[in-house]
Amino acid sequence: MERSKALSIVKGQLTEHRYEHTLGVMETAIWLSKANGADEKKAEIAAIFHDYAKFRPKEEMRKIIIDQGFKQDLLGFNSELWHAPVGAYLVEKEVGINDHEILDAIRFHTSGRKGMTLLEKVIYVADYIEPGRHFPGVEEVRELAKTNLELALIKSIQNTIVFLMKKNQPVYPDTFYTYNDLVTKRED
Amino acid sequence: MERSKALSIVKGQLTEHRYEHTLGVMETAIWLSKANGADEKKAEIAAIFHDYAKFRPKEEMRKIIIDQGFKQDLLGFNSELWHAPVGAYLVEKEVGINDHEILDAIRFHTSGRKGMTLLEKVIYVADYIEPGRHFPGVEEVRELAKTNLELALIKSIQNTIVFLMKKNQPVYPDTFYTYNDLVTKRED
Repeated sequence: MERSKALSIVKGQLTEHRYEHTLGVMETAIWLSKANGADEKKAEIAAIFHDYAKFRPKEEMRKIIIDQGFKQDLLGFNSELWHAPVGAYLVEKEVGINDHEILDAIRFHTSGRKGMTLLEKVIYVADYIEPGRHFPGVEEVRELAKTNLELALIKSIQNTIVFLMKKNQPVYPDTFYTYNDLVTKRED
Repeated sequence: MERSKALSIVKGQLTEHRYEHTLGVMETAIWLSKANGADEKKAEIAAIFHDYAKFRPKEEMRKIIIDQGFKQDLLGFNSELWHAPVGAYLVEKEVGINDHEILDAIRFHTSGRKGMTLLEKVIYVADYIEPGRHFPGVEEVRELAKTNLELALIKSIQNTIVFLMKKNQPVYPDTFYTYNDLVTKRED
């Protein structure tokens, strides 16, 4: 799909602010792909559509998670997690994208998962560091991403876990598994 | 079992330093029990024996974990975790203590678990804050423990997770589950 067509589709789903964020993720995902040998075109499309479901009503997302048999434990955690798997589902159903690598990059862009692919890592990190992001710790991850995607990913997940723990909020298990998986592989 | 007899048994299993630590855990566990309505006598015995297996050879601990069908995923994580379940096993087998509340407090004093009992919480926190402990963050947990065992426990687990993440080391899943369980119950 052409970039312009993809952008025009997603624009109708997002607020202006979130559309600007999406453009930032797209640009960042493309340079991370170039730097790390990922598929630039797939990264572009995954980035454009990663927040496709962000503004769907909670009840619609909840229904899709139940009806499609997605991981039901999602429903017990922050609904911020829901738009990722629901987005992958809707991007396939409504937009007609059926490339599984792209869909998985959308599906796991918030929780991560054990055994993340290169494209999934690119989208996860791009979402975290795109130029519109401003929060404590982002600059360190940006710097790491210039030379080491893997360390940038680990640091961004650590930051997310610490952020939630400071608020005494639960952490979705897949996020822990992603962290353990990444650091265990580095130890091997 | 009398305190003096229990101490004489455990003394033969520990270094001088670890024996001093054990006395600190015992005293701390007793006041935490008084403050929180736990069984003081059980807390005393659990505290005395909590590190019973601390200096057993790794290979002996590994064999027990395998032979007794303990959680096999322990073997993939830091061996510091092994002495807790192995200790519960040996304290029953060699010392003849068969009170399940005491044995579980020993078994889960390092990893925690989902649905910790009051006695387990007392031993976990006492082990973390006894007067011989000196590391960043311990004073905050000590202060919390004076008024709120639950918050002290949550903070000590958060500290442990952050400590491991700073070293890019994996975190044993039961420790994550314990954290999620505790903060989720507080939200209810």
